[in-house]
Amino acid sequence: MDPLAIPEIVIGRLPLYLRTLDLLASQGQTVASSQELGSRLGITSTQIRKDLSYFGEFGKQGTGYDIQYLREQLRSILQVDRCWDVALVGAGDLGHALVNYADFERRGFSIAAVFDKDRQKIGRRIERFEVLDAVTLPEVIKERRVQIAIIAVPAGEAQEVADMLVNAGIKAILSYAPITVTLPEHVRVHTIDPIRGLQSMTYYLNPDQS
Amino acid sequence: MDPLAIPEIVIGRLPLYLRTLDLLASQGQTVASSQELGSRLGITSTQIRKDLSYFGEFGKQGTGYDIQYLREQLRSILQVDRCWDVALVGAGDLGHALVNYADFERRGFSIAAVFDKDRQKIGRRIERFEVLDAVTLPEVIKERRVQIAIIAVPAGEAQEVADMLVNAGIKAILSYAPITVTLPEHVRVHTIDPIRGLQSMTYYLNPDQS
Repeated sequence: MDPLAIPEIVIGRLPLYLRTLDLLASQGQTVASSQELGSRLGITSTQIRKDLSYFGEFGKQGTGYDIQYLREQLRSILQVDRCWDVALVGAGDLGHALVNYADFERRGFSIAAVFDKDRQKIGRRIERFEVLDAVTLPEVIKERRVQIAIIAVPAGEAQEVADMLVNAGIKAILSYAPITVTLPEHVRVHTIDPIRGLQSMTYYLNPDQS
Repeated sequence: MDPLAIPEIVIGRLPLYLRTLDLLASQGQTVASSQELGSRLGITSTQIRKDLSYFGEFGKQGTGYDIQYLREQLRSILQVDRCWDVALVGAGDLGHALVNYADFERRGFSIAAVFDKDRQKIGRRIERFEVLDAVTLPEVIKERRVQIAIIAVPAGEAQEVADMLVNAGIKAILSYAPITVTLPEHVRVHTIDPIRGLQSMTYYLNPDQS
């Protein structure tokens, strides 16, 4: 099946299902219904069954999903049954937090190199990484064939960094910069925007209470 | 109209529209079509018109949206035409990055206090904040009637912090912890999960290239 034939929004939900199944497995659970997954995620069970049906038949009516099997299938679909190298650009507070983020390796990713253009940061260590000069970025990325990068630089530098990453061969960017970076169509970008999350909750709050 | 009558996914897209309109306005643009917004966001123009139609008539056929007017309307709908106090829990690298995140104030939020339970962090300053002992959290949140909190603590502490926040009266939580926290139904939670973003992009990558 053409991977692009499946709606992006469906693909975007699969990691949520996988994260929830990982959690249930870690608690020793072996079977889960679409109702249980749905109630944990605030998604209808119908939606979950419909999303999964794009990829095959994963559960039997009435018995629920075999958690271990569905995890393996989702990891294979999302291609995280392997470990992807990730280039991290930005060695500030956020860069430090990301290097220390324990979940990457367990969920399919490994930070391969950390870059910054700040002379004061280059050469310093963050955990097991020496911060590399951003001018070496194209070379390192090409040599290691890295396809994924994380942008953790200030907004004003994000577009320049994104252009540099794309020229070096990066195909997918996770951006923490609070701007929408403009990229060629063949490059995927996912923006982490805390304000978006906050603004989608204030809609429901009662402003008179505070 | 009952706020809950509008699908959550629609509400979740409004901040994207607002962010894009803010950007266009900052570039001096005064009118935008649903096509232009759509192509910038990777959302169909039909979807955008449908989302906005829940709240009224914001554009005339053929002339596009008045950017300033639509921004004001969206800010009002999302209730970010005011400034919300936010409690930040966790004064590590991520907490530092969030305190220094310039976009909060401009987009409707103001960090009101920073908490940590680590003796080595309590009393230290991060920019204009003195890090407060987490045991004072209920008191401070109640006194200032804060309704929104950000969790920037390790996964293992997130549920405990979330429970404490809810007991103190918090109604909306933005969580950076890579676990799904369990909360009462009346409390909204939005999880920032970088792996989710990465995993939804690897689906489209060619693993043989790297």
